[in-house]
Amino acid sequence: MENTHAKLFEVIAENAERTEAALAEIMKGEDEDFGLIYDAQRYSLLGGGKRVRPFLVNECCRVLGGSAEASMPLACAIEMIHTYSLIHDDLPCMDDDDVRRGKPSNHKKFGYANALLAGDALLTGAFKVIADAEVLSPEIRVKAVRVLAEAAGESGMIGGQIMDLVGETEELAFEKLIKLHSLKTAALMEGCAKLGCLAAGYDTDSYESEQLTEYARNVGVAFQVMDDVLDQIADEKILGKHLGADAEHNKTTFLTYYNVDEAKKYAEGLTGEAITAVSAIEHSELLTDFACYLLEREK
Amino acid sequence: MENTHAKLFEVIAENAERTEAALAEIMKGEDEDFGLIYDAQRYSLLGGGKRVRPFLVNECCRVLGGSAEASMPLACAIEMIHTYSLIHDDLPCMDDDDVRRGKPSNHKKFGYANALLAGDALLTGAFKVIADAEVLSPEIRVKAVRVLAEAAGESGMIGGQIMDLVGETEELAFEKLIKLHSLKTAALMEGCAKLGCLAAGYDTDSYESEQLTEYARNVGVAFQVMDDVLDQIADEKILGKHLGADAEHNKTTFLTYYNVDEAKKYAEGLTGEAITAVSAIEHSELLTDFACYLLEREK
Repeated sequence: MENTHAKLFEVIAENAERTEAALAEIMKGEDEDFGLIYDAQRYSLLGGGKRVRPFLVNECCRVLGGSAEASMPLACAIEMIHTYSLIHDDLPCMDDDDVRRGKPSNHKKFGYANALLAGDALLTGAFKVIADAEVLSPEIRVKAVRVLAEAAGESGMIGGQIMDLVGETEELAFEKLIKLHSLKTAALMEGCAKLGCLAAGYDTDSYESEQLTEYARNVGVAFQVMDDVLDQIADEKILGKHLGADAEHNKTTFLTYYNVDEAKKYAEGLTGEAITAVSAIEHSELLTDFACYLLEREK
Repeated sequence: MENTHAKLFEVIAENAERTEAALAEIMKGEDEDFGLIYDAQRYSLLGGGKRVRPFLVNECCRVLGGSAEASMPLACAIEMIHTYSLIHDDLPCMDDDDVRRGKPSNHKKFGYANALLAGDALLTGAFKVIADAEVLSPEIRVKAVRVLAEAAGESGMIGGQIMDLVGETEELAFEKLIKLHSLKTAALMEGCAKLGCLAAGYDTDSYESEQLTEYARNVGVAFQVMDDVLDQIADEKILGKHLGADAEHNKTTFLTYYNVDEAKKYAEGLTGEAITAVSAIEHSELLTDFACYLLEREK
């Protein structure tokens, strides 16, 4: 696999490094009276990861001829939203996960109240990052705020989380499960595509933005299907997450309806649709490669 | 008092009615799959109250000759932020309050997870309301997003909440207590003034905005001092909140340093400073009256 995706891995690694530096710059605040809120945010936001969402923002922008400087603030904003959602999702009143990426989850490290506030601060800060992005015109920044709020809000990610809570206690019909994942995971991925396009000067109703958003939606749902598959089969140590937590909670997942092979086939189909969606977009080879890589990933 | 403030009460009531209608319009979303998130938001956001913060936004705008249409989206956005902060503050991991405004707090009514998400949705939605406010130019909307994110974020309200958590377990020095309240309560009030000014076309560095912000800061801290006083002396029924909850928790308040009369004197001094700050602003009589009213209130 390393050989097939050599160029992609190089770009992902380079992007992750630049994203980390940009996020660290955003998080450099210091005030001894509320140092805890900075520490708790940094704990979950910094320190690596593939930075899938920032990659998607930055790559969509690059493909359309936009600059890396223009898309990075938007990439950081969406990573802050993603991180806040993980912190709140891990809280005892939600998924009650003690471990995240192989280390104690935010509330295990900083306590429940500080983790709650760290999530709130990241969510709030994401919008500040966009407002402060003077490399973009006010028109584009306003559109970016709207895209982010819609992707993250009650008709996007939070709507998916509400459905997820329902799915923990009652079995969801298959079409509801698809809707849940389209909202909970794919809505933010779609947001990445739209933000990348905006940074390159392509409005959300442009052909390019619509195709890249279609790509991101399919990649996002495929990503979630593979997450369910990996949760089922992966070794606890590899995934850095409690094994089979979903099955243990009787949660509805793709594995409620499909066996592992069928679920993989389903994700392959979605990946194919994603690739078709960007086939008419020039210079989109890395996005095609990225969709395949997400399908093949083992953690 | 009714006689002294007759005009003010008329304007506050009229403003509360218009704000309620505008918030109801924002909250009119329907999707049966995540109806709970709408219901939980509506439960805390709608149904009355004096709407102190929206009044402040709208009145600052009016004083500077701006239109009611221009400031209302910003007034709604800050009320959504205020409401989210109350929902999260009431959670068991924070202040653990079962009652808010005489009815069960959000998590008592909808459960812990839904209340958490309702708060997240209100916070996210506040920024969407600003982005959607086409009555304002993109330049002003971007500035409003920045003002709101700063007022609500880690260097504003959330910073105050973090200090508040510290103050629950250790005694805060007096100057830290002032800082705490300047952040936790007054930062959002300052945001109200700045947003009202922006809606009227006055930038945050204008003389008018600076004076109105100074007014709002003093009113905000005085408001918090009086809250501490009222918490100490008010009857549980009148306040709609568990009596003396702060004292019970050994929390640092103004009453840690002052007796009731001294605290009232302190709030009077702040109110005087607020009134001085707007004395050079034309048509600011209602703001002067409002500062006095907040000082005299009994709940």
